[in-house]
Amino acid sequence: MRISLNYCCMTEFDLIQKFFATQSVVRDDVVLGIGDDAAILQPPAGCQLVVTTDTLVEGVHFFADTDPVALGHKALAVNLSDLAAMGAEPAWFLLNLTLPRPEESWLAGFSEGLFALAREFNIQLVGGNTARGPLTIAIEAHGFVPDGEAIRRAGAQPGDSICVTGTLGDAALALAHRSGRRLLPLPDYDVLRPRLERPTPRVREGRLLRRFASSAIDLSDGLLADLGHVLDANGVGALLMRDRVPLSDTYRRHLDSAGWDLALAGGDDYELLFTVSARAGREFERWQSHFGCPVTCIGEIVSGPGLTVLDSAGNPYRPAQSGHDHFSGG
Amino acid sequence: MRISLNYCCMTEFDLIQKFFATQSVVRDDVVLGIGDDAAILQPPAGCQLVVTTDTLVEGVHFFADTDPVALGHKALAVNLSDLAAMGAEPAWFLLNLTLPRPEESWLAGFSEGLFALAREFNIQLVGGNTARGPLTIAIEAHGFVPDGEAIRRAGAQPGDSICVTGTLGDAALALAHRSGRRLLPLPDYDVLRPRLERPTPRVREGRLLRRFASSAIDLSDGLLADLGHVLDANGVGALLMRDRVPLSDTYRRHLDSAGWDLALAGGDDYELLFTVSARAGREFERWQSHFGCPVTCIGEIVSGPGLTVLDSAGNPYRPAQSGHDHFSGG
Repeated sequence: MRISLNYCCMTEFDLIQKFFATQSVVRDDVVLGIGDDAAILQPPAGCQLVVTTDTLVEGVHFFADTDPVALGHKALAVNLSDLAAMGAEPAWFLLNLTLPRPEESWLAGFSEGLFALAREFNIQLVGGNTARGPLTIAIEAHGFVPDGEAIRRAGAQPGDSICVTGTLGDAALALAHRSGRRLLPLPDYDVLRPRLERPTPRVREGRLLRRFASSAIDLSDGLLADLGHVLDANGVGALLMRDRVPLSDTYRRHLDSAGWDLALAGGDDYELLFTVSARAGREFERWQSHFGCPVTCIGEIVSGPGLTVLDSAGNPYRPAQSGHDHFSGG
Repeated sequence: MRISLNYCCMTEFDLIQKFFATQSVVRDDVVLGIGDDAAILQPPAGCQLVVTTDTLVEGVHFFADTDPVALGHKALAVNLSDLAAMGAEPAWFLLNLTLPRPEESWLAGFSEGLFALAREFNIQLVGGNTARGPLTIAIEAHGFVPDGEAIRRAGAQPGDSICVTGTLGDAALALAHRSGRRLLPLPDYDVLRPRLERPTPRVREGRLLRRFASSAIDLSDGLLADLGHVLDANGVGALLMRDRVPLSDTYRRHLDSAGWDLALAGGDDYELLFTVSARAGREFERWQSHFGCPVTCIGEIVSGPGLTVLDSAGNPYRPAQSGHDHFSGG
């Protein structure tokens, strides 16, 4: 493990060191951080470790000209979103950065975005690796949950409500504009763009979910696809009310032309989907005001297999692209 | 976190699942493995967590036509080597695999090499991510050490012996042949090639080092460069006896033409370098027979700064390429 560029000169090595060796998050449970063959970490007693990793590849997950500050933010945010979906408290992360050449301005921006988010959630960079190659960013994030309290995809039962945080489809609509598939007025794109480039991981909300959620998943592949994963994990089906899916004001202004499908299947939302049993309903209500974002119930888990979406008239609605093969269409 | 190909069809998803979702290592401390937003892991009481990551990029760290079985082995081996250098017991790993397209034969070979080594060291794949892009393999490996017993680069003192496991330069000599910079008789290349493509991580040896080593590092960048890291970490110097550097019989047969420099600075050895104080010498002798490979003392830590290599006549020897800027040349 090394924060350095393999097979490169010391000037480049120094450049990388400059941006990643010092940081403002310093945790007591990091016994040894960057600079040895591996980090030494002290997991707290009574806790389980929650570990996840996600990769962003240039040209696949982001455009080549993406603002490096936003990229640093997003690379960590998508991992924090996975921790959030488990109800975990972020602690440590590792960074694998493959880049064609170390450019000072790019590294300054990337590390700025990365560490600003790291500070917000008190997660410390404890190691990593840099290599020369096509721009690829892989982050591995570690968090804790009290023993046995992690929320899983498994756990949802027929009768449970299906809820989501925030609003859906904003990132997908911004991406549609960015890639030329849809044209938005520039002020609207400016509002939606941060939802694509700088998603807010719902870490605090995820910790609250431990009190009442029967299952949870983060929405990265799109509502229908990710709900499909929950259904798979539980051998159940779901009934979704399309018009209850929460939309931002900006998205709603374009609903007539953009339709529902970007909100249902667009992906890149990084909101949380969770289920709540009737029994846990009171606890849910009690804690709902503690959420830093809207929470909306959009449907119900049912025993039958398949995922049915109903439109405002109560008729089955089938999106053009469901993003998941378990979609039944009613 | 998902073992899947983002933005691809279900057939490809199924193909990936086929090779990575089932595996033969099943550890009790994995509460939840592959298949959720994150893994849930139970660190043992009284232990610290040791975490490392390394990336292999096609065209930078390996040739495009490298046998995928060997690649699966090496991607994990280089991380196990980092754990070994800390004296850690391997436990869990995550895999970030970026590949241009999922080819069944490639995936079969890669996973075969990966899991064969995982079985040997009882390390379980607990998560990961696959994405489409240029072939890049990033692995994060986790291990344990009893509280406070990890071996670090820091700890070496003047007077300590400098020792290495195995033989050095074999991988670099194989690479020199492979890349056309040197011509070996084919039988010799066949002997050296596994040292380049399938290095043996010195995990068992690393655990023994906890009993007597004052510092340790794994040799990935080359003896002189990596020893330089140890010197940096301790503010000390070193005196190396060039002719004590352990060579394989095959390397020794080519010593006249190949010279010492591939053994001194070639890299990719994945042996361990460690230091032993005079006080720990008896304990070292006692456990040396438990090593599964040769162990050779090649020099001594000195108080003065810089790294001096002496040839067989006792004259300062300066390799053409030291791989490290702290090389003083005597």
